[in-house]
Amino acid sequence: MTDPALPTVADFAAPPSAADRARWAEADAAVRPRRVARLRARFERAGIDAYFGLRRQHVRYLTGFVLGEGEEHVAGTSGHFLISGADVVLLADSRYTIQATAQAPEARVVDGPRDLASGWADLVGSVGARRVGVEAALLPYAVWRRLEAAAPNVELVPIEGWVEADRAIKEPAELERVAAGCAIADRALAGLLASVKPGATEHDLALDLEWAMRTSGAEALSFEPTCLVGPNAALPHGSPSASAEVRSGAVVLFDFGAQVDGYRSDMTRTLFVGEPSERDLAIHELVARAQAAAIAQIEATVDGELGLPSGRDLHEIARRLIEADGRFPPFGHGLGHGIGLATHERPSLSATSLDTSLPTPTVFSVEPGIYLEGETGVRIEDLLLLDADAGRVERLTQFPREFLALPG
Amino acid sequence: MTDPALPTVADFAAPPSAADRARWAEADAAVRPRRVARLRARFERAGIDAYFGLRRQHVRYLTGFVLGEGEEHVAGTSGHFLISGADVVLLADSRYTIQATAQAPEARVVDGPRDLASGWADLVGSVGARRVGVEAALLPYAVWRRLEAAAPNVELVPIEGWVEADRAIKEPAELERVAAGCAIADRALAGLLASVKPGATEHDLALDLEWAMRTSGAEALSFEPTCLVGPNAALPHGSPSASAEVRSGAVVLFDFGAQVDGYRSDMTRTLFVGEPSERDLAIHELVARAQAAAIAQIEATVDGELGLPSGRDLHEIARRLIEADGRFPPFGHGLGHGIGLATHERPSLSATSLDTSLPTPTVFSVEPGIYLEGETGVRIEDLLLLDADAGRVERLTQFPREFLALPG
Repeated sequence: MTDPALPTVADFAAPPSAADRARWAEADAAVRPRRVARLRARFERAGIDAYFGLRRQHVRYLTGFVLGEGEEHVAGTSGHFLISGADVVLLADSRYTIQATAQAPEARVVDGPRDLASGWADLVGSVGARRVGVEAALLPYAVWRRLEAAAPNVELVPIEGWVEADRAIKEPAELERVAAGCAIADRALAGLLASVKPGATEHDLALDLEWAMRTSGAEALSFEPTCLVGPNAALPHGSPSASAEVRSGAVVLFDFGAQVDGYRSDMTRTLFVGEPSERDLAIHELVARAQAAAIAQIEATVDGELGLPSGRDLHEIARRLIEADGRFPPFGHGLGHGIGLATHERPSLSATSLDTSLPTPTVFSVEPGIYLEGETGVRIEDLLLLDADAGRVERLTQFPREFLALPG
Repeated sequence: MTDPALPTVADFAAPPSAADRARWAEADAAVRPRRVARLRARFERAGIDAYFGLRRQHVRYLTGFVLGEGEEHVAGTSGHFLISGADVVLLADSRYTIQATAQAPEARVVDGPRDLASGWADLVGSVGARRVGVEAALLPYAVWRRLEAAAPNVELVPIEGWVEADRAIKEPAELERVAAGCAIADRALAGLLASVKPGATEHDLALDLEWAMRTSGAEALSFEPTCLVGPNAALPHGSPSASAEVRSGAVVLFDFGAQVDGYRSDMTRTLFVGEPSERDLAIHELVARAQAAAIAQIEATVDGELGLPSGRDLHEIARRLIEADGRFPPFGHGLGHGIGLATHERPSLSATSLDTSLPTPTVFSVEPGIYLEGETGVRIEDLLLLDADAGRVERLTQFPREFLALPG
């Protein structure tokens, strides 16, 4: 086992420039009509003449209108949209009118009613729709019933997964932003290493990590950063504690990500402080091998004649490697998830994923782990870019994933 | 007009202590059974034998299990709950099992299926329910249909607003946490004043404000802080820009809040830098009078023989004062909103609010504004505690709301 020199901030790509952001904005504006056309191309087969959606990532993807994380809970109907064969209608109440007009120039912005049902008949009538596909995985049951009552001659058709499937296939400018988010996260962790020493609390390290990202190019976080010490690392979704401190001989697990122009990154590293136990070393090595096996499988299929694996295949490959080893229990969560405008999106890599080939080009996490309740936990998570046509399989997370022991 | 001395950090209450937090945790644990009992007391009349809910604030309120903002999007079915006459069942997958068991000791924690429908029949069968009330304002239509198909002999009954109504009536330990969040926000703005000067960007001021809250007692934010300069302040929900700078003679509007043990605060102040125009002074004075008029109305009813006003009454009082003045257009948004575990919750103070008396004890914002598109905007927002039985009407936001001009 060799201790590589510690990574430094300068090892990773610089934060995006104003020119990068301008290029991405231009790319988004150029591609948005194609995204809308792809949605409309499904209308005839589904027998609908319009589509009504409300997921905040969907409205951004299709129109450009931005709601922040959680903002949908205070935005009312603002950000809901109706797309017919000829129109893109975006609802925005008085608080959002100016923003909506600026961000969604191709859309017709109309005043969003406080109560969707009260404006439904007018909205649907304004595009002449009679059968409206509705995002059934998000619209609440109670609202659905009120829409039916508000316009009895308009048929609602439940639609699921259309925009999700489109969003799984990433455009170059989307992948660039995910990669930029990865670099911001890489840099933040590199800059934090000097502070990861006995006595530092989970809470303070997580906050410092967040601050480093927020002041170096991240417009927001993918989620609240996690820092977990020793046995706490056995909680895959634990929260940083103000009383739990880094200890010599214990692991420190960081799970975090940065958002760049709407697109998110996600990474996990499990570091050691002081002298690790034989057991922790063995666990880290096994988790790294499980991750490498899944990635090797993708590389083999991209280079070869076989079709791409399914998310389930990859999940099973990583789990089986740990099971076959026999010393430690494999992770109970999924091996990974797609990422983009949402932290978790398609494709899914888990035991219950669809048994169909991965989409391409796409980006997803590969994050096996081993957790010993009350004792320790190790997870290693990288984002992987897959572009089968270009023969590309590429880790976007650049921070070294080899075993790393810090002074303690 | 007098310029009061600038407020300082020391003017406001200190952040909560560990003893405060322990007291609140104890109060929550003590009251939770009563909250569950209040829910169950509605079963018979609604003809149901269990209630299924999934709003993250509801599960925290009723069981103690905590999901952070946005975490519900990655938690799967974890945090969904089923309450029957005898049982409180909390779903938590392997990632959340340890946390759920610790935070929700009165609940029976069961492994949450990745797909709710696949575990529905077992879940409902485990409590012997045949007619289940379901939180219809949140459960998506598509999931509802799958639950119906998964257990055809279990009737689903749409339920709306039960827990929302209960949460609007605040317990003392809830009000204390909202007040603690107000003090953290007050202190943060006081500490920021020296930085609010020409050349500072909206983005940097918003980030500094956030950092001040996060490092002084806020576990999270109520929402992304807003800082808007000059004409940007006319966008009631604008986002801070990295290029917009504070200018002498222009307003700076801050809208922000802190979260303490789950409970949130929300405040807005519109400051002036340098010499304000007569117009901006007049607008500020008028907005302050509109706010005072609404609050005076509550005070009058608490002290008098009349019933409490409705949220709609208060909204109209504030708006009509601005309309009667005739010089500037009144705000198009609602006058205010309840606040607690969510930033926006009951009661609502707006033109479309129910015309029923405010609940009590409760806490809500009073936030009139005047916006001149392309020119300027002023909003003043305080949280108001109302406890009619105790004769209390009290601003929890302590930061001075009088006109405040900073050097510029």
